[in-house]
Amino acid sequence: MPYQLPDERLLAMLREDVPYGDLTTRGLAIVERRGEAVFRTRTTITACCVEEAERLMLLAGCTGTRRVAATGAQVEAGGDLLVAEGDAGALHHGMKVAQTLMEVTSGIASRARRILAAARKGRPNIAVACTRKHLPGAKDVMLRAIMAGGCIPHRLGLSDSVLVFAQHRAFLGRMPPHLWVEQLRNAQPERKITVEAESVDEAMWFAAAGIDAVQLDKLSPEQVAEAVRAMATLPRRPLVIVAGGVTEDNAADYASAGAALLVTSAAYGAPPADISVTITAR
Amino acid sequence: MPYQLPDERLLAMLREDVPYGDLTTRGLAIVERRGEAVFRTRTTITACCVEEAERLMLLAGCTGTRRVAATGAQVEAGGDLLVAEGDAGALHHGMKVAQTLMEVTSGIASRARRILAAARKGRPNIAVACTRKHLPGAKDVMLRAIMAGGCIPHRLGLSDSVLVFAQHRAFLGRMPPHLWVEQLRNAQPERKITVEAESVDEAMWFAAAGIDAVQLDKLSPEQVAEAVRAMATLPRRPLVIVAGGVTEDNAADYASAGAALLVTSAAYGAPPADISVTITAR
Amino acid sequence: MPYQLPDERLLAMLREDVPYGDLTTRGLAIVERRGEAVFRTRTTITACCVEEAERLMLLAGCTGTRRVAATGAQVEAGGDLLVAEGDAGALHHGMKVAQTLMEVTSGIASRARRILAAARKGRPNIAVACTRKHLPGAKDVMLRAIMAGGCIPHRLGLSDSVLVFAQHRAFLGRMPPHLWVEQLRNAQPERKITVEAESVDEAMWFAAAGIDAVQLDKLSPEQVAEAVRAMATLPRRPLVIVAGGVTEDNAADYASAGAALLVTSAAYGAPPADISVTITAR
Amino acid sequence: MPYQLPDERLLAMLREDVPYGDLTTRGLAIVERRGEAVFRTRTTITACCVEEAERLMLLAGCTGTRRVAATGAQVEAGGDLLVAEGDAGALHHGMKVAQTLMEVTSGIASRARRILAAARKGRPNIAVACTRKHLPGAKDVMLRAIMAGGCIPHRLGLSDSVLVFAQHRAFLGRMPPHLWVEQLRNAQPERKITVEAESVDEAMWFAAAGIDAVQLDKLSPEQVAEAVRAMATLPRRPLVIVAGGVTEDNAADYASAGAALLVTSAAYGAPPADISVTITAR
Amino acid sequence: MPYQLPDERLLAMLREDVPYGDLTTRGLAIVERRGEAVFRTRTTITACCVEEAERLMLLAGCTGTRRVAATGAQVEAGGDLLVAEGDAGALHHGMKVAQTLMEVTSGIASRARRILAAARKGRPNIAVACTRKHLPGAKDVMLRAIMAGGCIPHRLGLSDSVLVFAQHRAFLGRMPPHLWVEQLRNAQPERKITVEAESVDEAMWFAAAGIDAVQLDKLSPEQVAEAVRAMATLPRRPLVIVAGGVTEDNAADYASAGAALLVTSAAYGAPPADISVTITAR
Amino acid sequence: MPYQLPDERLLAMLREDVPYGDLTTRGLAIVERRGEAVFRTRTTITACCVEEAERLMLLAGCTGTRRVAATGAQVEAGGDLLVAEGDAGALHHGMKVAQTLMEVTSGIASRARRILAAARKGRPNIAVACTRKHLPGAKDVMLRAIMAGGCIPHRLGLSDSVLVFAQHRAFLGRMPPHLWVEQLRNAQPERKITVEAESVDEAMWFAAAGIDAVQLDKLSPEQVAEAVRAMATLPRRPLVIVAGGVTEDNAADYASAGAALLVTSAAYGAPPADISVTITAR
Repeated sequence: MPYQLPDERLLAMLREDVPYGDLTTRGLAIVERRGEAVFRTRTTITACCVEEAERLMLLAGCTGTRRVAATGAQVEAGGDLLVAEGDAGALHHGMKVAQTLMEVTSGIASRARRILAAARKGRPNIAVACTRKHLPGAKDVMLRAIMAGGCIPHRLGLSDSVLVFAQHRAFLGRMPPHLWVEQLRNAQPERKITVEAESVDEAMWFAAAGIDAVQLDKLSPEQVAEAVRAMATLPRRPLVIVAGGVTEDNAADYASAGAALLVTSAAYGAPPADISVTITAR
Repeated sequence: MPYQLPDERLLAMLREDVPYGDLTTRGLAIVERRGEAVFRTRTTITACCVEEAERLMLLAGCTGTRRVAATGAQVEAGGDLLVAEGDAGALHHGMKVAQTLMEVTSGIASRARRILAAARKGRPNIAVACTRKHLPGAKDVMLRAIMAGGCIPHRLGLSDSVLVFAQHRAFLGRMPPHLWVEQLRNAQPERKITVEAESVDEAMWFAAAGIDAVQLDKLSPEQVAEAVRAMATLPRRPLVIVAGGVTEDNAADYASAGAALLVTSAAYGAPPADISVTITAR
Repeated sequence: MPYQLPDERLLAMLREDVPYGDLTTRGLAIVERRGEAVFRTRTTITACCVEEAERLMLLAGCTGTRRVAATGAQVEAGGDLLVAEGDAGALHHGMKVAQTLMEVTSGIASRARRILAAARKGRPNIAVACTRKHLPGAKDVMLRAIMAGGCIPHRLGLSDSVLVFAQHRAFLGRMPPHLWVEQLRNAQPERKITVEAESVDEAMWFAAAGIDAVQLDKLSPEQVAEAVRAMATLPRRPLVIVAGGVTEDNAADYASAGAALLVTSAAYGAPPADISVTITAR
Repeated sequence: MPYQLPDERLLAMLREDVPYGDLTTRGLAIVERRGEAVFRTRTTITACCVEEAERLMLLAGCTGTRRVAATGAQVEAGGDLLVAEGDAGALHHGMKVAQTLMEVTSGIASRARRILAAARKGRPNIAVACTRKHLPGAKDVMLRAIMAGGCIPHRLGLSDSVLVFAQHRAFLGRMPPHLWVEQLRNAQPERKITVEAESVDEAMWFAAAGIDAVQLDKLSPEQVAEAVRAMATLPRRPLVIVAGGVTEDNAADYASAGAALLVTSAAYGAPPADISVTITAR
Repeated sequence: MPYQLPDERLLAMLREDVPYGDLTTRGLAIVERRGEAVFRTRTTITACCVEEAERLMLLAGCTGTRRVAATGAQVEAGGDLLVAEGDAGALHHGMKVAQTLMEVTSGIASRARRILAAARKGRPNIAVACTRKHLPGAKDVMLRAIMAGGCIPHRLGLSDSVLVFAQHRAFLGRMPPHLWVEQLRNAQPERKITVEAESVDEAMWFAAAGIDAVQLDKLSPEQVAEAVRAMATLPRRPLVIVAGGVTEDNAADYASAGAALLVTSAAYGAPPADISVTITAR
Repeated sequence: MPYQLPDERLLAMLREDVPYGDLTTRGLAIVERRGEAVFRTRTTITACCVEEAERLMLLAGCTGTRRVAATGAQVEAGGDLLVAEGDAGALHHGMKVAQTLMEVTSGIASRARRILAAARKGRPNIAVACTRKHLPGAKDVMLRAIMAGGCIPHRLGLSDSVLVFAQHRAFLGRMPPHLWVEQLRNAQPERKITVEAESVDEAMWFAAAGIDAVQLDKLSPEQVAEAVRAMATLPRRPLVIVAGGVTEDNAADYASAGAALLVTSAAYGAPPADISVTITAR
């Protein structure tokens, strides 16, 4: 099963928007009229959460759906995503949540896809990872969206990976890197030891201490290239990760500078896609 | 009490990021070193969720905090927001979630504030409402942020208000507006009857049917002005709400065109604020 | 979809009653015997939660159901509501929760219907709204029940509407009403400004300040009539809402006194309906 | 610790009523004015959930509280229950939920107390148990209320006790009672074997089969007395429980008829207590 | 319906193990390959949670399942339990949770069955109850497992039964047992009054005070026999429950010593069953 | 902050055990008597969840606590862990859950510590990781316990790491390992590529394909030594992880055979520690 948001999460979204029924549909006495809703994208997008939108419409009481596109697919402007049929009560109950969820996540997926494509112009097959700097509490939706765009999750949080920041080193005093790197490796032999460096010199210093990966933070593509060249002289070269300010515009430059992986938060801030919903009575 | 996110919500954010403890701090054996974290904004912002960030740091085990700014306050670039002290384990446990929550929400609050300020250049005292087109499942955080920027929530969802869209009228056939408006008013005498209009003609047509408010969707400021003038001739003038494409750039024009309320989704897509966290050992 | 309680809510009800299985059915070794349960009302009722009861029986493991009545329907004494079939384990697992949910909510729905009917004797088409003074934590069930009886929800809570009580005015000192009414209207142009008045004089005072609706609290029908007459002289007449002590017995009087809307908490205290469950082995 | 509703439950009640802040207090710009709220009963009651009301006010942001009465106490008409102080935002945030929770539960507790008192007129020291026929999903609140009135919970549900109804016997065919009673006793030696009887004859029949308790359903006090006399002749007399239609009015008669325990659902349908909240600015 | 773990519980287990999709299956690009998983026990077991495992595989996205064994059944070494088919993504998503849940619970069920069988060698038809000393927060899984093995739950917790420990008696000072037993009986006439005794003398002392059951804690089989003989002289003999250290090895001795019920925590600590999962591509 | 179970989790444990108050303490009328509870271990243990036990007692209403030992500490037989004081109602409310949580987790921690100590006899500084084969739904408690014993979590689940099993390879047909290893590395450059091997030959085959770590499953220490020697001839030697059947008894052998990391599920099945609770009235 490709990773999808579970019903429980979708029901909470419906409950947030329609906690006690729909006053308007009820007030107009149209709850039981039959109709059809068509969700269509106005611009070209990498679609996301179409399966969840379909499920939302069914949870809202629709009696039939036809999914035209899949999460991860490129859909041209004007293309249909989903058709749902049911009574007006069900259609209106689910319509806005389904639409908005696809808009927000397709916006993110589309930008994720563009960053990835840009990066691969610089270096084919490079991967792009997205950070944990998304809206707290929405990791499930956010990772769903960036994976739809072909990106991968960077670390999920503090419990699954080892990444040393300056904020950790503040507590290490003058202990030389090779000592704390060894300490970390003994503690977590199964996980890569990654350290964030804020300059080429720092990168070399940590690399020489035997780390598995160096995460270069807010360096220019030129500085990244310099760091890569410098580390090439080392007997054991760490994986070079570039983070901090990676966007669609500079991803190719960073990739061709020699990064093995780009890490970005840029996709999360993408504007939502523009998806229309047309309802027809039947 | 000003509206804040409850502990339960904040604990879920911590659990999402640090479900089973922090491998790095533990691996470095620095969990019990004492230190201090300072959260500082790199740009001028309308601060948001500083209280929540403070609470997050305490829930993460910090032993003391000092909140320097409050939600809703304008904080100049370089200004401190929050200081927390505790052991390195606690500081790292809460740091990133606290930082990211303030960044995302202050970004939204700042844009909300700018849209409001722009609108009030067009018409002093005008209010700006933000839609329900935010990330589904995050209404609490999103409304917290736009209210920090001085905006108000538009309808919360389908259960608290009456708003007729074209997607409802699709089921009404040729029933004349005054009939379904009357039907709605009988059903919901206590709530305003609002109808969305997509042209000046539609606006006049619905206004004449006795509605309380007309929501003009995707009209230009000129069209809004025309609609306002046209409706001025009616014995009973509905409240004029403008929605669809309202941004910081055009808010003043819409306001001076005579809108009584602007409705926008633009704030939700604001880029996050840039807030640094400096940690010092003590 | 008409508003129903979601599975999650119903499963919590089952879990509350049968957290770890049914000792009696198991102890009697009858878990797998097949049978049928018939739910039948002993008195005439406005049925409620029959759909939920059906769903409860299915969630409890029943293999077939036949729903004979719908929420909102008038069912004569002796009329069947629901038939479920399955093994004795499933029938007993769900039976009592299904029965009790229908009993409690049908009791409320029936009284809500009677209050509405009484009110409409005083004034056809008048609406009756039910307050938020129900058991805290049960708003979903309570609103389901009163809507089944044809009533509507009054305000859902503090976040969706504006209603000024004496407890607010305690903080306003000597500020004249037209000033705080204007302040509220600027703050919330989209929502009606309603003020509670405890006398005819107060009602006139607030009405003159330009409010949208006045909620008359604990006035007699005669006082309501007097207030309506008095306000008829105003250039802009607020909606007249009557609250505080409205019951089946006085609803007609209040309605004919000129109220546009009655608000009551009386339905929540209705005695439960009396619904039998007959189980037959097959 | 006497059994109280936990914070989690109380926070859900607040969230239900005030999901996104208080529009009115905010619109009036009085959020930060200081004041005091006094909760006072208008009639004599058995108080309930005063501790929870106090906690609700603190969770809503109040800075100080003074609890004057305790759950279970008899409070005379006009007596204070609770005083809370804080800013107007906090007072209004928690006020209605605190008030309503005390009203609903004190109403139930008061009736529970009256039924118990009536029963003890018929037989000192008799206990009164309340059924599981309360609003599904609210067992915690309901048991809190009836225990405040001195009653005890009857069975909590199907997983903690053994009680045989006609609906079970439907599956037992012609198996003689002593056989299925023995089967139950082997299965659940630690729990009392109770059987519901709908006539004196049935009661004798089951009693002779060796049950621990007989629950007489909907028999008159005279029939109960007859059953008690009849069973006195048995070598092993079951506990006599009376259920079905027990109210404040007939509890004494049932008790003096010889019942060892009365079981009732009547308390749950009690009208709410009438508790005023007075707010004063300070 | 036999008692099973609800979907909500199973989904939480899946979410715990696979919160954001499966990196390996996705990285290998095999998500959509079709296959079949066969769950087979390597040793003879009392099966448990096969139904839940089946449901887990369906919730994980499998398209078909065939359940070969049922909870409670004895399955020989090498016997199949469950077959699931679907794509590799679905199979891997659910496989480990389904396997581990069956392993842990079947291990417990198997030991529970063995303890019960041992006890019944000492005394046919004796019941064995399992305590509440399981992993806190897992009562639902634990009771499911021990019931699969034919045991019954001892008390569910403090709210459903009366059991007096030394830790209660510490607060009773020199009050003679018959007084506090009477107090308890008045308070809870419907529930058995059970008291834990740590010696034969204590057992006699409490038994003479009129309790319904005595729970002998950590006595040897010989002491139990002595207590049973001693109590046989009393006019009203309490049920004899044996607890504290009951295992598969001594259960027969305790049973033949005259215990009416054995209470044990031993099943919870059983080693997990060994269940293989074979996956074949199709 | 060292990783602890949050209040929310602890409250759920209390609610599971005492959903509606304590019948016995209430029935004995001792709820308000003051006393003290001392938790003391009967055997030498690695303590776990003492902090949580302390918190449980406070959440249950105790008024004071004194924690004598910390999670992770070695406590000699007879040593005190925790003292709590409060009224009898509070002490009994929390006592059993606090005791059982410490017993279960200290049992696991103690065995984890012993496995680790044994492994380090074979090779100082070696780490021991515990699998995800614990009771589903209890990962938080289980990881808390094994970390208290000095072990580390192996992979958290499928979303944080890459581990190829035979069950994955079933879908890869005849694709040579270096191809799918390269595919995985491109997909997940930041995570180690680990493959499980069931023989020395398999291990060499995968190692030659360029993996980061090989997990040897169910090989004997001799076979492990052979695999380590064989791989020493490779230009790029993977990390050698040993899994499958690792216990306290063989950990030293596996470690001295050259494993870099041992992975075990054995700790989860440890018998609970034996912790007494003595209550004294004051």
